[in-house]
Amino acid sequence: MERDTSELFEEFKELTASEFFRRNKQMLGFSGKIRSLTIVFHELITNSLDACEEVGILPDITIELKRLGKDHYLLTHADNGPGIPEEFITKVYCQMFAGSKFRNIQSRGQQGLGCSGCVLLSQMTTGQPVKIRSRYKDGNQLKGIEMTVKLDVKKNTGIILDRQEFETDRTGSGIEIEFKDVSYSMSEQGAYEYIRRTVIGNPHAKIVFKDPTGRKYTFDRATDKIPPLPKEVLPHPKGVTADDIIYLCKSTNKKRFKNLLMDSLSRVSASKIKEIEEATGLDMNKRPKSITWKEAESVVKQFDQMK
Amino acid sequence: MERDTSELFEEFKELTASEFFRRNKQMLGFSGKIRSLTIVFHELITNSLDACEEVGILPDITIELKRLGKDHYLLTHADNGPGIPEEFITKVYCQMFAGSKFRNIQSRGQQGLGCSGCVLLSQMTTGQPVKIRSRYKDGNQLKGIEMTVKLDVKKNTGIILDRQEFETDRTGSGIEIEFKDVSYSMSEQGAYEYIRRTVIGNPHAKIVFKDPTGRKYTFDRATDKIPPLPKEVLPHPKGVTADDIIYLCKSTNKKRFKNLLMDSLSRVSASKIKEIEEATGLDMNKRPKSITWKEAESVVKQFDQMK
Repeated sequence: MERDTSELFEEFKELTASEFFRRNKQMLGFSGKIRSLTIVFHELITNSLDACEEVGILPDITIELKRLGKDHYLLTHADNGPGIPEEFITKVYCQMFAGSKFRNIQSRGQQGLGCSGCVLLSQMTTGQPVKIRSRYKDGNQLKGIEMTVKLDVKKNTGIILDRQEFETDRTGSGIEIEFKDVSYSMSEQGAYEYIRRTVIGNPHAKIVFKDPTGRKYTFDRATDKIPPLPKEVLPHPKGVTADDIIYLCKSTNKKRFKNLLMDSLSRVSASKIKEIEEATGLDMNKRPKSITWKEAESVVKQFDQMK
Repeated sequence: MERDTSELFEEFKELTASEFFRRNKQMLGFSGKIRSLTIVFHELITNSLDACEEVGILPDITIELKRLGKDHYLLTHADNGPGIPEEFITKVYCQMFAGSKFRNIQSRGQQGLGCSGCVLLSQMTTGQPVKIRSRYKDGNQLKGIEMTVKLDVKKNTGIILDRQEFETDRTGSGIEIEFKDVSYSMSEQGAYEYIRRTVIGNPHAKIVFKDPTGRKYTFDRATDKIPPLPKEVLPHPKGVTADDIIYLCKSTNKKRFKNLLMDSLSRVSASKIKEIEEATGLDMNKRPKSITWKEAESVVKQFDQMK
């Protein structure tokens, strides 16, 4: 009963990131009814905290969870952050592997899976589109956009079903999103406890939460001091691999290897460069694109020996 | 110190699956030196076992692990499977989310991450390309191809550095691949123990393993009986979600909803269809593309009540 090789490969398929995570939603943390809902809270709240932090706003977050039926909820989330420019709305909410968290700051969220992961879970369990509201500054103007969108799993993009502009006097973003097969709980792993701990860790944040029984919890901020925006901390040389250096070399437009190192890594001074040059015999004025793996490795080795 | 929204989104990036997993290699199981190497063994061996099973060949797998330095190894793997047609070689080894394991069979491997994940880890730790050998039937001819390839992380594709044809009198595929920052161990989590357990679970497989000390272990097959190729088991109706039904409806070229259900799911007979029709009031002759979420949900509900 031997099958032909060509037959075997007829079934060869390429998946988009959305299709992949549709099949492997546990990789996004979506396992178990209670935990899945907590992950949703986590993704939405961390997104709000990060966005507010980026622009120096004291976060004001509201979340309402309405029970629509057994294991069936409508979640309404809104923040006072900077909002999302219209052209990025579907990228943020409907595209896996797209995200803005690629500066080297200590950010809370994951790498571009968060909001899109929530929309995917919603769609997989309810088939419903989500409603997104974004209020943002476009130059000196404030713009308000409300969109109804679905995630096109096969293309890993968003489909806009409806789009309305509205007037606004502030910034912020928010989402109305339905879930089934999730469960709200007061347990350790539940969504309430997640919020309670989040406000402890973020004393400058205010979160208002209306639970499925209609009870409203206000977690007021403990301080009005906006935490300083984390500086973009450059990677420490001792944490850098040869692969990282090659990756930097391929992406840069710097003309000299030494400038790339000094500008991309922390604590690499001109005297360190000289030290490396002497120890490795490598011409630090070389073009980054010409750096070989061996040369990158020799630099990493020198970094490791740095005091 | 308020930043502008537009400034915030300047840093917005879209990643390929390869770039994503380059940053999140622990999601592929690559965490810890011992475990990382075991995962590599797992991916290569399960791929061989699955490929042999698909075409009804008794698996003959050889793996050699040469120590090149501290935490630095060269792995050579070969099997007697059906091989990989040339046009699929870079897809199998250099493209995340591409794979042939999408029939509903009980296969051992993961969903299209396996081999490409190994190549990614190799490249991230050594910067070296990998050498792939494939011997396969092209119609009535046997073809042998040897390729040296790299994974283009930014594009999630393979780059062919070298390509040679050679003559062969059999089929099979194999890879020569280098790793650093991994470690061979006899411990529970180590690669040796992984092989030992794999042959217990697969008594029809023969695995010859040469370890880094040069010792050769031959795990002979305990039976010559090829396990029957698992039938493509259709999903059981009770395990199907509304989202699955909508997904099926979108992908099918069937003209009637009832035929889609009968052909895509197990144990759905004409009489079951009638039962569902009566209980839901849904016209089962509808075009699949016109099925709504609510209708899919009503069918799932009926499935749940099936005996």
